[in-house]
Amino acid sequence: MPDAARPARLNLPFVGICTFGKFPYIADWDRIEADVAVMGAPFDCGAQYRSGARMGPRGIREASTLFSFGLGGAYDFEDDITYLDPAKVRIVDIGDADIIHTDTAQSHANIAYGVRKILEAGAVPVVLGGDHSVNIPCIDAFEGQEPIHIVQIDAHLDFVDERHGVRFGHGNPMRRAAEKPYVTGLTQIGIRNVSSTARDGYEAARRMGADILSVRQFRKLGVEGVLARIPDGVRYYLTIDIDGFDPSIAPGTGTPSHGGFGYYEMLELIDGLARKGPVVGLDLVEVAPDYDHTGTTQTLAAQVLLNAIGRILHHR
Amino acid sequence: MPDAARPARLNLPFVGICTFGKFPYIADWDRIEADVAVMGAPFDCGAQYRSGARMGPRGIREASTLFSFGLGGAYDFEDDITYLDPAKVRIVDIGDADIIHTDTAQSHANIAYGVRKILEAGAVPVVLGGDHSVNIPCIDAFEGQEPIHIVQIDAHLDFVDERHGVRFGHGNPMRRAAEKPYVTGLTQIGIRNVSSTARDGYEAARRMGADILSVRQFRKLGVEGVLARIPDGVRYYLTIDIDGFDPSIAPGTGTPSHGGFGYYEMLELIDGLARKGPVVGLDLVEVAPDYDHTGTTQTLAAQVLLNAIGRILHHR
Amino acid sequence: MPDAARPARLNLPFVGICTFGKFPYIADWDRIEADVAVMGAPFDCGAQYRSGARMGPRGIREASTLFSFGLGGAYDFEDDITYLDPAKVRIVDIGDADIIHTDTAQSHANIAYGVRKILEAGAVPVVLGGDHSVNIPCIDAFEGQEPIHIVQIDAHLDFVDERHGVRFGHGNPMRRAAEKPYVTGLTQIGIRNVSSTARDGYEAARRMGADILSVRQFRKLGVEGVLARIPDGVRYYLTIDIDGFDPSIAPGTGTPSHGGFGYYEMLELIDGLARKGPVVGLDLVEVAPDYDHTGTTQTLAAQVLLNAIGRILHHR
Amino acid sequence: MPDAARPARLNLPFVGICTFGKFPYIADWDRIEADVAVMGAPFDCGAQYRSGARMGPRGIREASTLFSFGLGGAYDFEDDITYLDPAKVRIVDIGDADIIHTDTAQSHANIAYGVRKILEAGAVPVVLGGDHSVNIPCIDAFEGQEPIHIVQIDAHLDFVDERHGVRFGHGNPMRRAAEKPYVTGLTQIGIRNVSSTARDGYEAARRMGADILSVRQFRKLGVEGVLARIPDGVRYYLTIDIDGFDPSIAPGTGTPSHGGFGYYEMLELIDGLARKGPVVGLDLVEVAPDYDHTGTTQTLAAQVLLNAIGRILHHR
Amino acid sequence: MPDAARPARLNLPFVGICTFGKFPYIADWDRIEADVAVMGAPFDCGAQYRSGARMGPRGIREASTLFSFGLGGAYDFEDDITYLDPAKVRIVDIGDADIIHTDTAQSHANIAYGVRKILEAGAVPVVLGGDHSVNIPCIDAFEGQEPIHIVQIDAHLDFVDERHGVRFGHGNPMRRAAEKPYVTGLTQIGIRNVSSTARDGYEAARRMGADILSVRQFRKLGVEGVLARIPDGVRYYLTIDIDGFDPSIAPGTGTPSHGGFGYYEMLELIDGLARKGPVVGLDLVEVAPDYDHTGTTQTLAAQVLLNAIGRILHHR
Amino acid sequence: MPDAARPARLNLPFVGICTFGKFPYIADWDRIEADVAVMGAPFDCGAQYRSGARMGPRGIREASTLFSFGLGGAYDFEDDITYLDPAKVRIVDIGDADIIHTDTAQSHANIAYGVRKILEAGAVPVVLGGDHSVNIPCIDAFEGQEPIHIVQIDAHLDFVDERHGVRFGHGNPMRRAAEKPYVTGLTQIGIRNVSSTARDGYEAARRMGADILSVRQFRKLGVEGVLARIPDGVRYYLTIDIDGFDPSIAPGTGTPSHGGFGYYEMLELIDGLARKGPVVGLDLVEVAPDYDHTGTTQTLAAQVLLNAIGRILHHR
Repeated sequence: MPDAARPARLNLPFVGICTFGKFPYIADWDRIEADVAVMGAPFDCGAQYRSGARMGPRGIREASTLFSFGLGGAYDFEDDITYLDPAKVRIVDIGDADIIHTDTAQSHANIAYGVRKILEAGAVPVVLGGDHSVNIPCIDAFEGQEPIHIVQIDAHLDFVDERHGVRFGHGNPMRRAAEKPYVTGLTQIGIRNVSSTARDGYEAARRMGADILSVRQFRKLGVEGVLARIPDGVRYYLTIDIDGFDPSIAPGTGTPSHGGFGYYEMLELIDGLARKGPVVGLDLVEVAPDYDHTGTTQTLAAQVLLNAIGRILHHR
Repeated sequence: MPDAARPARLNLPFVGICTFGKFPYIADWDRIEADVAVMGAPFDCGAQYRSGARMGPRGIREASTLFSFGLGGAYDFEDDITYLDPAKVRIVDIGDADIIHTDTAQSHANIAYGVRKILEAGAVPVVLGGDHSVNIPCIDAFEGQEPIHIVQIDAHLDFVDERHGVRFGHGNPMRRAAEKPYVTGLTQIGIRNVSSTARDGYEAARRMGADILSVRQFRKLGVEGVLARIPDGVRYYLTIDIDGFDPSIAPGTGTPSHGGFGYYEMLELIDGLARKGPVVGLDLVEVAPDYDHTGTTQTLAAQVLLNAIGRILHHR
Repeated sequence: MPDAARPARLNLPFVGICTFGKFPYIADWDRIEADVAVMGAPFDCGAQYRSGARMGPRGIREASTLFSFGLGGAYDFEDDITYLDPAKVRIVDIGDADIIHTDTAQSHANIAYGVRKILEAGAVPVVLGGDHSVNIPCIDAFEGQEPIHIVQIDAHLDFVDERHGVRFGHGNPMRRAAEKPYVTGLTQIGIRNVSSTARDGYEAARRMGADILSVRQFRKLGVEGVLARIPDGVRYYLTIDIDGFDPSIAPGTGTPSHGGFGYYEMLELIDGLARKGPVVGLDLVEVAPDYDHTGTTQTLAAQVLLNAIGRILHHR
Repeated sequence: MPDAARPARLNLPFVGICTFGKFPYIADWDRIEADVAVMGAPFDCGAQYRSGARMGPRGIREASTLFSFGLGGAYDFEDDITYLDPAKVRIVDIGDADIIHTDTAQSHANIAYGVRKILEAGAVPVVLGGDHSVNIPCIDAFEGQEPIHIVQIDAHLDFVDERHGVRFGHGNPMRRAAEKPYVTGLTQIGIRNVSSTARDGYEAARRMGADILSVRQFRKLGVEGVLARIPDGVRYYLTIDIDGFDPSIAPGTGTPSHGGFGYYEMLELIDGLARKGPVVGLDLVEVAPDYDHTGTTQTLAAQVLLNAIGRILHHR
Repeated sequence: MPDAARPARLNLPFVGICTFGKFPYIADWDRIEADVAVMGAPFDCGAQYRSGARMGPRGIREASTLFSFGLGGAYDFEDDITYLDPAKVRIVDIGDADIIHTDTAQSHANIAYGVRKILEAGAVPVVLGGDHSVNIPCIDAFEGQEPIHIVQIDAHLDFVDERHGVRFGHGNPMRRAAEKPYVTGLTQIGIRNVSSTARDGYEAARRMGADILSVRQFRKLGVEGVLARIPDGVRYYLTIDIDGFDPSIAPGTGTPSHGGFGYYEMLELIDGLARKGPVVGLDLVEVAPDYDHTGTTQTLAAQVLLNAIGRILHHR
Repeated sequence: MPDAARPARLNLPFVGICTFGKFPYIADWDRIEADVAVMGAPFDCGAQYRSGARMGPRGIREASTLFSFGLGGAYDFEDDITYLDPAKVRIVDIGDADIIHTDTAQSHANIAYGVRKILEAGAVPVVLGGDHSVNIPCIDAFEGQEPIHIVQIDAHLDFVDERHGVRFGHGNPMRRAAEKPYVTGLTQIGIRNVSSTARDGYEAARRMGADILSVRQFRKLGVEGVLARIPDGVRYYLTIDIDGFDPSIAPGTGTPSHGGFGYYEMLELIDGLARKGPVVGLDLVEVAPDYDHTGTTQTLAAQVLLNAIGRILHHR
């Protein structure tokens, strides 16, 4: 929380209240004035293995303070660009959607409400999960907006239609998204891992407009090759399941899968996507701090998000 | 899993598959032949703070193997009694109720189904939580049985009627129980902690037949004094929230509260209850292994359960 | 952070930004309007063994959200009192004092500045450490105020005058306090542990007005007996080193010492002190979350603080 | 434990008893009817640095449940193959060999007994360590079988003949194997780390038929190049020391060594080996869950084993 | 390691090499000149459940540095005595006995060798385990000395004669001791826990001269009452299994058992024993740092040992 | 601590006192006779985010014992060289510099004193941090020596001149070094991470003689290309911030940054540097064991240091 009254503060990362990136907290959702608004969606009852992603927003906010030091923006000497220049962009943290334990439908509705408030304010929503089911209300909130193409970074296809009556768990979001008329296609990147989905799931996804790439296929194509397969001239919604990254840098997640991406692969993909067209929404899900003893995963999430936001705003 | 074919095995605690106490696993719920049947209820979407109790049954089973060593029963030199004598009692583990993520109602129904199967087999059900909401289907399953008096060990009153539509979360079970015609009363022991329930909750509980005792009130009365307040001549159902114990020995739980019970206080209460009348059902809930780095909490749960089962069967 | 615009939120403990007890954050230190103002002092360079207390304020704030649930105040059924009734008391979190790494003097000056701002606003300062050296600027800030008597809960005497030039480390605060003309005396409770201070330290403390009690002496006297030794008719400043508590409930601290207090002993002492006279300032120090894997210590700190604040405000 | 009586169960990974991959448990070692039989060998007294590998089998079994979800086999969309199709292959878990504390010889004998039982049943033995010394009785059990060529994945050569009388510790297994007349050769892959073995150990290994490759040599050759150096037309026994992998993905082991393999390198090597000829036995050792706080290592072990078993059975 | 050449050092606890209490290291076992000599016995292959006690000596040494601060001895203000006055007593650390993995007999022989060296030097041996089996060679080393009476603090009786050929594991030491002609009796304190030993073990122990007391029996008798049952006019050997203490303060151990002792109970017992007669040897075993995330257990071990040594030397 | 009196000891890694690499401890700093002298600098009050690096020297020493096994030197089969041959090189551990809590200037002065003592003895100083500010006194100690060129491995530029009066924190060392007349230049390798330094810091660094390379620039150039940019014919001082490595292998540090180096990249760089010219000093900083639950980071530090020392001595 920047403090205009005390401009002279050194404000080391470990000092002060943890909002995302120490950006201002906006309690009144009718007064969001920002380019980007960050909201937590601490719901984890959609998880099929380890729970704990409900603490994701808190973990990511804490880690993000490391990168908040010095509010004159973020200078990247490789790009020779200062991202997140406070004179040019305004980022706010609006807190969390209200979660109702035992009630998936109402929790999801509350998440959708928050995203809609951000969209109404003309800001780009950045949602901190929570398990991947929180992507469902995020996409719901885009109803009535211009069409979007979804770019998913994930170890799992998340394309199950229904199993035992479950349609809104963390194995279902991409199927739910593909059903939307305003979702024009999906690019699913990082998919791997024996047994995450049966063959018919892959077939259905492809039929419904998905381009599916494994980590090794991504590497063979290269970042440019992958970007070339993503349609031009559309608006992108980016959904990042932290388990798309390798367990070596993202151990703190519910359903880890070895063989995932390294940091630069995704940084370069996101940078390329931001250059290619507008990224109009973003969620990062499945960070489970209880399994992240060293904080590596939440640090990764914060570092990816701040870089992504910086690039999305710089290149738009 | 005892192995009749290899009687000569030393079978150290860390060796072999983790069923509860290494008692036999019964996969076919139509063939439960036992005095006590243990079932897991790994549901944690009723939790209001930290999740993770879904891993409780696995944690308790692992810890219980420490006490499984030597299958000639459990000799207690203070009582000079050998409890759990395999020649006299039969205990089985029937695995877990089927949990449906995102679906509280169906998950609870599946738990109730398992408890009913145990009751139909004439065995005493011992249910491993999961959060305290799993007590709701446990009590549901006693519908049609002889009346029961509930003895609850807990830091929290769990007597909320409804909040934001939630009636089946881990703050509601004692209210739900009190509504049942076959629940004749409640004794709620260990209740403490500023702000867990508002004053009207206490008033409602007392009106609906509850006797509420704090830890300090328990200590002033002594075990005998507390037992004297519990009605005679009835059947008891015992529900143990591990947070009734002190965080010093039960840190691994979702909503810890300082100032809880020590081990012997509860051992002696349970022993006294078992002597006083039949304990016809038992659940132990809210063990969250992710917060139990040293295993202390799951060891406590296993130690309490094995002692409780031993005493319930010996004194009946 | 309560959110007047959305009164209908369930606002579970794990939801939302972590201010202390989810009380409002006041960024402008010239506009503190409150009965109690909480400030963090995340300084740990005064520690002689394990560092990490700089993360104490964050840890305590996170844990305090567990007890924030339901903002209608905190009903204690044992006392039959609702503490912290929002209609009657106003509590705010003003964030942290600015800490300057490598610079003890400036960091301490910044802490004193914050406490003075709180005192100027007529609020009771509640400071979250940091190591025990942060007590030094807290007491400094009372310069010019009415005299105070210090009640210290601690395993260590903290009465070293100077060693190797060090006068402002975590072994020195009570000596620094005793030197102040406006400190009329000290009651030092819980002192124990071979080798923490040499004999001359004890002699100096007694000479300068200290009444020193070990844990076992406290237990022999009882709470009432201890309270009787504390002077009447004066204003109290309470400094709580979390290592005054037993390592079983407060493992997450830099210099743990076995044989400390239980929860109720201190709750009852604080309650008695609040009834005896005004508590005009309070610090709780030495919580080191990195050594508190289960969160037990920060939960204790939050639970003690919320209870202390409730009683201080209720009984004044 | 699959449960034919309740086919409709969702059976989420965290639900139910932990056998390996939730495959059926066979208690009677005279009735093993399977293509692959998994046995634990929880012995860790052969370790020279950190102990704890005795908990390896439990850790791997727990992690393997993540990959057990959906028992229709494991579809790999990169290969477009469904491995582990239950209609085609039968896998069982026979529990653990009986370990006798303080007695290396008897513990090893009991491990050899279990492997022999599996071989007699015509199944492929898959042994979960335990420290690498458990490989010694595994190879002993192949006495009287057709010859085998050993492929070892490991950071260490494990080729010490004798030191201080020790011949059956975790530094000795490859030497013991090389002495067997039915072991026709060794391919030792991943060997690195200053000071693990003196020069004479390398010379002896080469003299006795070993082909030794470091991680960097492996990378220079490529998977195909390495496979080409492994003899054709023989039966393979694969022994995987988890420390052959990099500490970034396998921190939970007794003697970690930086600079190890990534996931895909080994997956592709194992796939290639399975295509090249029959893999008639397999052990995976040195997983120490106590050092694996996030579960990354045991997840890796489970993921590698399920993929290896799938490929061994598919390509045979 | 005190450093005479640099007397002016502040020497904070976290600074410098970890010998026990930062006392001098003596590498040459033929030149032990001391009142007390500390030796590590890092053997853990006698453990029946969790291993890891091999790291006990390292953990205890690290923790002991906290209490080493200020080398002018340890002033206890409750007793008004300065223990461990360097002008009066000399304590050394001789490092560890040589452990041979896989070889219990040789490891035990090496431990006995070290203890004999200490006894030959006329010093009191203080041995840091390792599992409780290391007590066996400790007692062996007293062969040829004056008789001793053993006082054991432990949750378990450790009186198994033989099982599956095992006679020198951590379940056997008291039986082995009782067989020695120079062991005149045993007082076994803290014994509890269903199933640790069968009834015949208790009968054998009593027959062979043991006085067995549970925690609750100890509390009924009081410290003085317990001391009165220990024979007068004999030499004492004290063996402390850390699991005699409660898991709340000693979670880091292989076979924890709830319901154990608090810190002062044992401090007072040890103090009383030291006043009653000479304590000629001491071991403290079963500290397993891998399960001691906060360091609580190793801190307890160090605090108990330094207090015990101080009192043994002061009262002799 | 090698023990000449007992040459026959097996001396497993977990046995004995932890000096660095179990090399001899030299308490008298006027009698350092060695090729390399290792000293700890456990100071962490220069850290801007997480503290805990004060425990770095202890953590690295413990981990180094893993690589100490077998004192016949370290045979590297890839190089076919035996490094660290005890017949050819002498390495000692001189313990730690004296740290004065709250006093940065005096702590730094004490570190400089120790390094000067090593230089006076003609040995190469190897300093174990502590935070990166300890590099400042290390470089100070080279005053009056022949000029040095600094090679820095780090995620951060550490080139801040002054902020809020801080000139000697962990963000300042390279600026302080560049100001020295005897520092002829800097090569800064691994620099990355948005927001670590503002643009003017980079400009100042380049102006003052720095060659700055990111991880990706390093990879494009290759090890040989990078070595070619480092000046020839000069003496090198190597400063390794462990956060130059990737968080996947170095999570235990105060300010982690994703996208860092792998193990072999740095091993090969260090090997090349040692071949290129004399490395006359070395520090490795920012290992924070409290965040290194699995020990991975301290193992990396120990492995890098032992390899670096071996190569520096072999190639000189």
